[in-house]
Amino acid sequence: MEQQPVTMSDVARAAGVSVTTVSYVLSGKRPVAPATTEAVQAAVARLGFRLNTVAQSLRTGRSSTAALIIPDIANPFYAELARGLQDALRRERLHVVICNTNADRAEELSYLDDVVRRRLDGVVITPQWLVTDDLDPLRAAGIPVVVSADTELSDLDVVRADSREAIDQAVAHLAERGHRRLGMVAGPTGTPNGDPRLALYRAAARRHGLALPADLVVRGKHTREAGAAALRRMMSRAQPPTAVVCVNDRSAIGVLEAAEDTGLRIPSDLALIGHDDIEVASLTRPRLSTIRYPAYEVGSTCGRLLLERLDGRVDPVEVALRTRFVPREST
Amino acid sequence: MEQQPVTMSDVARAAGVSVTTVSYVLSGKRPVAPATTEAVQAAVARLGFRLNTVAQSLRTGRSSTAALIIPDIANPFYAELARGLQDALRRERLHVVICNTNADRAEELSYLDDVVRRRLDGVVITPQWLVTDDLDPLRAAGIPVVVSADTELSDLDVVRADSREAIDQAVAHLAERGHRRLGMVAGPTGTPNGDPRLALYRAAARRHGLALPADLVVRGKHTREAGAAALRRMMSRAQPPTAVVCVNDRSAIGVLEAAEDTGLRIPSDLALIGHDDIEVASLTRPRLSTIRYPAYEVGSTCGRLLLERLDGRVDPVEVALRTRFVPREST
Repeated sequence: MEQQPVTMSDVARAAGVSVTTVSYVLSGKRPVAPATTEAVQAAVARLGFRLNTVAQSLRTGRSSTAALIIPDIANPFYAELARGLQDALRRERLHVVICNTNADRAEELSYLDDVVRRRLDGVVITPQWLVTDDLDPLRAAGIPVVVSADTELSDLDVVRADSREAIDQAVAHLAERGHRRLGMVAGPTGTPNGDPRLALYRAAARRHGLALPADLVVRGKHTREAGAAALRRMMSRAQPPTAVVCVNDRSAIGVLEAAEDTGLRIPSDLALIGHDDIEVASLTRPRLSTIRYPAYEVGSTCGRLLLERLDGRVDPVEVALRTRFVPREST
Repeated sequence: MEQQPVTMSDVARAAGVSVTTVSYVLSGKRPVAPATTEAVQAAVARLGFRLNTVAQSLRTGRSSTAALIIPDIANPFYAELARGLQDALRRERLHVVICNTNADRAEELSYLDDVVRRRLDGVVITPQWLVTDDLDPLRAAGIPVVVSADTELSDLDVVRADSREAIDQAVAHLAERGHRRLGMVAGPTGTPNGDPRLALYRAAARRHGLALPADLVVRGKHTREAGAAALRRMMSRAQPPTAVVCVNDRSAIGVLEAAEDTGLRIPSDLALIGHDDIEVASLTRPRLSTIRYPAYEVGSTCGRLLLERLDGRVDPVEVALRTRFVPREST
């Protein structure tokens, strides 16, 4: 029979504290009373606790597995991210299994439960609805989590886009072309972390003197269908926009198709900007202006952070990858 | 401690026969001597062997997991297939984890090993290099396998394209437009199952009086890069083709890009036909003529077959899904 590894739960029980407290002591992320810190450190030493490491798997001669949990397999952004992650982990004999949640909270929780139950070695996740407590079972099992998103989830490694400058350039580009009234296809309402891209567009519109009125911000899923529906909604307003910016390229392609269906010409009747620069953005007619967020590099960076964690790093790290405005034919 | 389920290996040992023989007896696929059949049936009854079932998982209150093993996550065909599979399995509380092999035999074997080791409940696979013996560990563990491909793998459920008629229509369409000389971007050389699409194009070209000479059949991976390289190779021949047909849309898009780079106009200088009808095929400039193979339906059919297996069906089933020629602007 296999020996069960010592978990963070075991340490918490032995030290008479919560798993969260053990996590804070190990990561140094939050201050913990000195007596508590000592109790935890003593329990760690007594039980021989260590974070789940690649080295352990190599010793057992088995390949290890990390889960990539994503909201939309139909978005090629995640396929590229997956390739970057796989390439980064392959040399350490870490496999990747990809889990598609359809941006559904129950699916997110269910895949996390699978990860713990099947004792996978790490998780890379783009969460939609998760809050920090949802990850306690992973903390307790000592399974490291890397988040690819703008997020408020604490004590985790995060890889996110730094789009401030690129979005500012995109809005300046629209202003130069005479646009004064923007619409935005934004992400869903009510996600724990809001929609940082909307906040950046609002700030940039203010700086460049463009309007981005509330009735031209249409929220929904990050899909083609949502983009098409959003355009129809915007164009039914008393004062429709002359330019539409989108939370991602998938929804921008939905806008493109809906515009074609309704006889709107892009860019002469309506300018359009996406986000991500997925492969198809440079193949559409007209070619899509967008904000390039390098998916492969996002994936390989997540992989690097995960390997560092498995190698024993305990302090959380945040990496912001700079995006870049790519003007093409839709503006 | 969990009770270990009785496996096909246990039955084989008890009956003094090979796992393959047990599989033949249970599936009825191949004739087995009556005495051997009786010995196997007696062992099955004595040990209480049953195929791994969804019912078992439901009894334990745990969600089950099936693996989808695919050669290229960057091909949106597989994203759609995954969505169809997930939707079909969700109502039975079966999760899907997606494993991307990059069409590499070692990765294929390694993921299969993971499936057995982590006791997943089923596998749907588009194999590239696997031969029938590679699946013995899954047979031994009683884990059902559904194959999405034209394949010679025996005793498994298979979902495949029936493209005979659609490819015949595509070639007739080229013949009507005056084409007499085809090139083909075909799949890799040396895969165990050959390239059935090439065989269908060869037969259709013969029927309609078009040439498809050996030096205009370029083999390689099913990727954009391979498509681009193949076009350059074909156009360097003494007698280049006037129309190019492709094993899938990804490689056709590579041809499209390479044609643009070299100043070839599509369709006036070169006609082009893909296969699959992935989403981007209707978004490219010019829009791609292709053979529509409904990926979502492929996935949901694989899901249905997997559920039937988990429910106790033992006879292998083959489902051929009719494809359809979709002429657009590239021909």
